[in-house]
Amino acid sequence: MAVNLPALGSLPPVSGVRIGTAGAGIKQRERDDVAVFLLAPDTVVAGVFTNSAFRAAPVQIACANLATGSVRALVINSGNANAATGAAGLADAQAVCRTLADAAGIDQSAVLPFSTGVIGERLPVDRVQKAVELATERAAEDGWPAAAASIMTTDTGPKAVSRQVPVQGCPVTINGIAKGAGMIRPDMATMLAFVCCDASVTPECLDDLTREVADRSFNRISVDGDTSTNDSFVVCASGMAGNALITSPEDPGYQDLRQGLSAVAVDLATRIVRDGEGATKFVTIRVRGGADTEECLRVAYTIAESPLVKTAAFAGDPNWGRFCMAIGRSGVKDLDTGSVDLYLDDVCVARGGLLAPDYAEADGGRVMAQDEFEVRVELGRGDAEEVVWTCDLSYEYVRINAEYRT
Amino acid sequence: MAVNLPALGSLPPVSGVRIGTAGAGIKQRERDDVAVFLLAPDTVVAGVFTNSAFRAAPVQIACANLATGSVRALVINSGNANAATGAAGLADAQAVCRTLADAAGIDQSAVLPFSTGVIGERLPVDRVQKAVELATERAAEDGWPAAAASIMTTDTGPKAVSRQVPVQGCPVTINGIAKGAGMIRPDMATMLAFVCCDASVTPECLDDLTREVADRSFNRISVDGDTSTNDSFVVCASGMAGNALITSPEDPGYQDLRQGLSAVAVDLATRIVRDGEGATKFVTIRVRGGADTEECLRVAYTIAESPLVKTAAFAGDPNWGRFCMAIGRSGVKDLDTGSVDLYLDDVCVARGGLLAPDYAEADGGRVMAQDEFEVRVELGRGDAEEVVWTCDLSYEYVRINAEYRT
Repeated sequence: MAVNLPALGSLPPVSGVRIGTAGAGIKQRERDDVAVFLLAPDTVVAGVFTNSAFRAAPVQIACANLATGSVRALVINSGNANAATGAAGLADAQAVCRTLADAAGIDQSAVLPFSTGVIGERLPVDRVQKAVELATERAAEDGWPAAAASIMTTDTGPKAVSRQVPVQGCPVTINGIAKGAGMIRPDMATMLAFVCCDASVTPECLDDLTREVADRSFNRISVDGDTSTNDSFVVCASGMAGNALITSPEDPGYQDLRQGLSAVAVDLATRIVRDGEGATKFVTIRVRGGADTEECLRVAYTIAESPLVKTAAFAGDPNWGRFCMAIGRSGVKDLDTGSVDLYLDDVCVARGGLLAPDYAEADGGRVMAQDEFEVRVELGRGDAEEVVWTCDLSYEYVRINAEYRT
Repeated sequence: MAVNLPALGSLPPVSGVRIGTAGAGIKQRERDDVAVFLLAPDTVVAGVFTNSAFRAAPVQIACANLATGSVRALVINSGNANAATGAAGLADAQAVCRTLADAAGIDQSAVLPFSTGVIGERLPVDRVQKAVELATERAAEDGWPAAAASIMTTDTGPKAVSRQVPVQGCPVTINGIAKGAGMIRPDMATMLAFVCCDASVTPECLDDLTREVADRSFNRISVDGDTSTNDSFVVCASGMAGNALITSPEDPGYQDLRQGLSAVAVDLATRIVRDGEGATKFVTIRVRGGADTEECLRVAYTIAESPLVKTAAFAGDPNWGRFCMAIGRSGVKDLDTGSVDLYLDDVCVARGGLLAPDYAEADGGRVMAQDEFEVRVELGRGDAEEVVWTCDLSYEYVRINAEYRT
């Protein structure tokens, strides 16, 4: 049911990054569900994590280990989130980290663990440990496609992106993989995303870049408004590309790297929406003319998360009243509806809060019949503009989520 | 698909209130879609209305006319919301009010208009005016069941409630009708509710009572988190029951009337949820032990509006991770998940943020297999407690909302 989800393209190696996968049979037999990333010494790592009060055990450990400053490996399993599992879950995640540390000959605190899948069930630690050992043996520079496949849960296909960008004239390779299809929205989506590059950058700059990039990509998507206990976005920079060390945002290389990371992150994030559970439409919500970012996002998310808008999108029905309803209830202070315009792609549906005199419903219907379209709201209050990506709500979303565990 | 929606019971007359209905063929032929309420002189009326920035034309007029203090009639149409229709829509609603005023021999400013249905389309004023004239001719004390039917849109059945309550020993009759099945959530649901009683009460007291009662009934329900441009809850008191005039909250009659109005409003509000679009389960979300009302409601609504919880409810799947997810992302400040307990009816699913050791999934499954069940969260932070009523998210919800206009 995915909407124009691109197939995996070529994924060249990223110097200093080796990846291996193996099967632990956590939820399904006969597929790899464990991946390990082995990172060269001195790799710089940054990450942003879920804001949920129920932060999963691996997220708690990843945050703590990331703070120690030296990260040499990532371990990821799908099929079980190791969330809401308490002290036992923490011990399970630590045991997995220890296995990887032993196999790779690194400190246990240099391992960041990640899990995704069912919440509230214990991890089958023995089987995961065996898979970690096997994956470590298999680790190689060409492990990217297998890693993208291994982290999938309800995803219909693997998601990976590669870009080469010049950073102050020096070619830098940026690869990223992501998983996520439901429980998607900011702060963060139920998603895992791992991006590795070979740029040379200070930890402080990479941290700033990671937050900035996440905010304009993974924090701008919504499938169903739900947020996971395990969401994580991690960026690793091995420093082996040979560019001059990026030390501040004023550095020209900072902007080069920002653009490259941002392109990879937006591409991954929109692929998650394209693969939204049950999605049949990919919808860009653009809100312009807001007094500030916050009110643009408020309107954009109210539209993006409205079940009535989402079912109208599924039906391809240009039911503009539902957009009005969503804009009206979004809570923008003192909104003058008489200055609100609504467009579907280039078709002006409403002007000044009223159905446009020259609007023909057939035109709106043609736009919404497409796989992909843009809903644009002009608030007429200022210069702020924000974009959010979402998908429709279909029978298939209900089926997937009603049957997920059965 | 409604969940145990009660059939209409007996609806005795309310002294001083006459009701008539007629068909204007707004959206469907061969049904009555217009109702008029004719109120005795000196009837006291109070109302609460949607907070949407796109307030429909009739809502704007009803608010303005209510402020003048003398209300003698209500006119309601289904099938067209007369919302987002600008100055033309206001003129249309005024024209309908004028027709009723002429037919009933009252001031135009003494008429409150209400509309529900499709947004953004003009009302067929001529046909509505003819129906208003006919409905006025037909007005009688036994018009309650016909009125309940006439205001339906996607409702699967009419919703009406009657109670007799002693107010300081004097019997007071309270009748109410409501419509609403989708676009339901606080501030307010897409719903119209009209309650009439024959109590004698000051305008100030009735206004207080109406707000208080709405807050604990119609503002505690959620079907899909969407809010309409037209929501209205109106309470009329004809003063013909003969009770001593209620002049303050300290008056014992105030509490008597409050209990009666509250019982009627909660009954109507929960019927709206039982008839939630596509609903197969009626779910009570009770949050206890919060530090204050606000955080209890925050948790309750996050659960009630989570598509993942709602699809799990549809499947009857006690997927407790989804409850954790919702509690975790609800944004309660400094929530210690280690003190959170979760119950499904009397079954303790989680204690101290962890799966309860004695919990068997079959027990949770048995609770969620029922038509109706309660989800109870104990936050362990204080004494506040709040209840919200909701329903599940089914294939049928998607079908209804994808096909509504086609």
